[in-house]
Amino acid sequence: MKNILKINKCLISVSDKSDIVKFAKSISAKKIDIVSTGNTYKKLKQEGIKVKKVESITKFPEILEGRVKTLHPKIFGGILGDVNNVRHLKDMQNHKLEKFELVIVNLYPFEKVIEKTNNIQKCIDNIDVGGPSMIRGAAKNYNSTGVVIDKNDYKEILMQIKNYGGLTLDLRKKLAYKAFYRTMQYDTKISVWMSRNILDKEYSDLLISASKPNKLRYGENPHQAASFYSTTKNKSTFFEKLNGKELSYNNLNDLKLGLKLTAEFSSPTCVIIKHAIPSSVSESKDIKSAWDRAYMADSLSAFGGVVIFNKKLDEQLARKISKVFLEVIVAPSYTEKALKILRKKINLRIIKIKNIIKLVKTFEKDITFLPGGVLVQEVDKFKVSINKLKVVTNKAPSKKEKEDLVFAYKVVKHVRSNAIVIAKNKTTVGIGSGNTSRVDSVQFAIIKAKRSFLGKRDNLLGAVMASDAFFPFSDSIKIAAKANIKAIIQPGGSISDNKVIEETDKEKISMVFTGKRCFSHY
Amino acid sequence: MKNILKINKCLISVSDKSDIVKFAKSISAKKIDIVSTGNTYKKLKQEGIKVKKVESITKFPEILEGRVKTLHPKIFGGILGDVNNVRHLKDMQNHKLEKFELVIVNLYPFEKVIEKTNNIQKCIDNIDVGGPSMIRGAAKNYNSTGVVIDKNDYKEILMQIKNYGGLTLDLRKKLAYKAFYRTMQYDTKISVWMSRNILDKEYSDLLISASKPNKLRYGENPHQAASFYSTTKNKSTFFEKLNGKELSYNNLNDLKLGLKLTAEFSSPTCVIIKHAIPSSVSESKDIKSAWDRAYMADSLSAFGGVVIFNKKLDEQLARKISKVFLEVIVAPSYTEKALKILRKKINLRIIKIKNIIKLVKTFEKDITFLPGGVLVQEVDKFKVSINKLKVVTNKAPSKKEKEDLVFAYKVVKHVRSNAIVIAKNKTTVGIGSGNTSRVDSVQFAIIKAKRSFLGKRDNLLGAVMASDAFFPFSDSIKIAAKANIKAIIQPGGSISDNKVIEETDKEKISMVFTGKRCFSHY
Repeated sequence: MKNILKINKCLISVSDKSDIVKFAKSISAKKIDIVSTGNTYKKLKQEGIKVKKVESITKFPEILEGRVKTLHPKIFGGILGDVNNVRHLKDMQNHKLEKFELVIVNLYPFEKVIEKTNNIQKCIDNIDVGGPSMIRGAAKNYNSTGVVIDKNDYKEILMQIKNYGGLTLDLRKKLAYKAFYRTMQYDTKISVWMSRNILDKEYSDLLISASKPNKLRYGENPHQAASFYSTTKNKSTFFEKLNGKELSYNNLNDLKLGLKLTAEFSSPTCVIIKHAIPSSVSESKDIKSAWDRAYMADSLSAFGGVVIFNKKLDEQLARKISKVFLEVIVAPSYTEKALKILRKKINLRIIKIKNIIKLVKTFEKDITFLPGGVLVQEVDKFKVSINKLKVVTNKAPSKKEKEDLVFAYKVVKHVRSNAIVIAKNKTTVGIGSGNTSRVDSVQFAIIKAKRSFLGKRDNLLGAVMASDAFFPFSDSIKIAAKANIKAIIQPGGSISDNKVIEETDKEKISMVFTGKRCFSHY
Repeated sequence: MKNILKINKCLISVSDKSDIVKFAKSISAKKIDIVSTGNTYKKLKQEGIKVKKVESITKFPEILEGRVKTLHPKIFGGILGDVNNVRHLKDMQNHKLEKFELVIVNLYPFEKVIEKTNNIQKCIDNIDVGGPSMIRGAAKNYNSTGVVIDKNDYKEILMQIKNYGGLTLDLRKKLAYKAFYRTMQYDTKISVWMSRNILDKEYSDLLISASKPNKLRYGENPHQAASFYSTTKNKSTFFEKLNGKELSYNNLNDLKLGLKLTAEFSSPTCVIIKHAIPSSVSESKDIKSAWDRAYMADSLSAFGGVVIFNKKLDEQLARKISKVFLEVIVAPSYTEKALKILRKKINLRIIKIKNIIKLVKTFEKDITFLPGGVLVQEVDKFKVSINKLKVVTNKAPSKKEKEDLVFAYKVVKHVRSNAIVIAKNKTTVGIGSGNTSRVDSVQFAIIKAKRSFLGKRDNLLGAVMASDAFFPFSDSIKIAAKANIKAIIQPGGSISDNKVIEETDKEKISMVFTGKRCFSHY
């Protein structure tokens, strides 16, 4: 075994003292000298472990309420001295520097403290200075020093000392990497906190650090590698999986859109997603009829889809659903009987998300990589409201039409631009998405509506239409009129608004403006 | 003026010594004592500036080839001592600690060195330990210490010393934030470098830090805030703007897709993008006919589009283009006369990107935020090649058909799934994008093709069709046959492949498999 670093002396300075006594006892039994600071020293001493104070080496007391303890050449010489370097060895002899082959340090709990208090001074007191300095020094010198910042590594350290009498180079390298990753993480937290708490306005630098990657089978296509990185401390995901295979990249991407769309509704609603586009949506008096309507609205697209419910799923509904091939089902809860039925499909991913509306509030930003940079925007938080609609035509929509218009606008916000949604009885009957021209989306939404659930032309009778942006021309209105659309919702804002309203009046259709465009290209 | 910190003593230890002499002279003239390390000391001394050595305070020499210079309680006491704290003041008196109110430090150029050398030891030697310790200490103690890590701040420091006799609290806070942002950035670089260079396999933690945000007018919609953050050191963007308004969020997003698509081609090609979807593409013998064909292929969608050329744009082409309302034009270069013509449209954004293929190679990852995490995938790097097509039907496509098939597949890769592209003479004539069902995309692509440039049904005669994923059923083949499609390209891989091939044979259409699916949902 090559490149084993024998451990003679160990420096321990830990804020989180769990497991440290056991660890120190074990290395002490291996005749390793232990040097320690303040409270760590006290704790080890109490437990009867042989330990020396840092001050016995520095001949300098702890000062400034502990701000300066280890920042001394006698300590850092022992950390940074490279025993493979003759000039280093000479300096170490001349200045009687004792080598620390092992440095065990964890940091003041800045991250935890800022979550508990708004007291600025208390937070600042918990910014560790000596700790990161020791960690960084030891990590730089991984050739001659092992550095441990994570108590989960104690076991492996002890095993290597037991088996090899010291640490392998491979382990020291891994520990060094972990050390710099830790200081990076720590200073990321500090700089974000500072920008939010001590500066007048939040600095807008972009900092994203995520770890614990959960490797996915692949990305959008089998030849693309992909991972889901966690930005939370615990490994828990935002959902609970009750059955089926792991969620794929495309499932997660569909889920994102589906959850955002579902969060628009509080009444019982069923949303069906395919290829990150809603294929149909229905809001109804109960969740069972929401499914019936949504499924019938576009049963062709529902095949292999991701289906999201915002209410508890029961046995009766489970029976209905299980007749259709689906990839993913999401609901806030399930009855035991419903689960039993659904679990018969061993591949079906059954997902539980308790509070979709609350979860979606955590979506804050959209992000896109460009060469040499990152494009970031706030998510679209606009909520369409029935009270704020502006009627612009001679004819006003009826109360029922207004409700359908608001429903359709909530959906169209999440359909890829150019987006058109035709709806009736709070159910989508035709969705035109991702077209380069608005009039195409109108035309294609109508084609889809005609083959929709009733299977008859009068499907469209009494239907309403939503557009995610203004109509640049009145051609779309003419096509809508021919298809029997009776009311239209759109943001307005075109220089051609007057012409478009004129045409709409001529066709005896009512039209309302929301004032807010809702383009969406993801 | 409140909260001014009077500066009596300044510690200077800089690796990048530009502007430091001028700065030191200015503060020295204000009777501020200067203490300095190694080479910084020498440089200032040479210039006749009054300066003391760090060793004169620590009474301890530089050791370990400069690894330990300032890591001493006499120095860190002076940095970390809070003069508003009586216990600190007492310690400082007892131990004769001299207070540094100002700390000027910049770091060993680790970032630059790793770009120049693969020598591991040289890189490690350039990991600064003392510097970040001083910076972090001074930043923590911004109540009593000013910390400067950026020479661009020298001017403001001097101005405040001149005007107020010291530094304001606001400035000290901003400097402290910048300091922690710097150490975060530095350790990010180190941990990424370590994971790539000293570990067996690259650790897959995700680290993104971007700064210098360029605020955009708004995001996808006017009510969404948005910024473009730079990940490069210099402020330069990946494009050069020769005319027109700033690029909007949607322009940048369109550009991203457009560049990726354009990079598929080396022959003269024109790509037109609307709503982050290609509305038409043509590859031709020269760039002028590429424009003519692409424009005619879908002139309805081209209105207000983003147009990308991969060859120089001349006067003749500029005249043609300027007849159409466009938002953005991109080309690798322009003749003077072409520019003169295009610049008459004052709002038209004229963009120069020298080497689109090289630029697109810098796209490495796609990223999406989810609650508590980030979804990351490698970009799709699959290149379709004429030599690797697998003919699966009795009939094989002709040479010309094969070329059209490859062209269509290059385009369909960048159309939103479910994606269908119908092409003829290396020009798209119908694009079906973003539908929840594949057969809808086929149907809608054909509708578009029928109104395309020739304006006749025989538009489709001899046309070919590309699908971004396999056909689950043979319905699409029947529809394609009716529309006179003569050859089809698709990845294959369905359990229904045999049935689909059978149907294709029956319709006397030829079909090739690429073996690689190309879903795209962004």
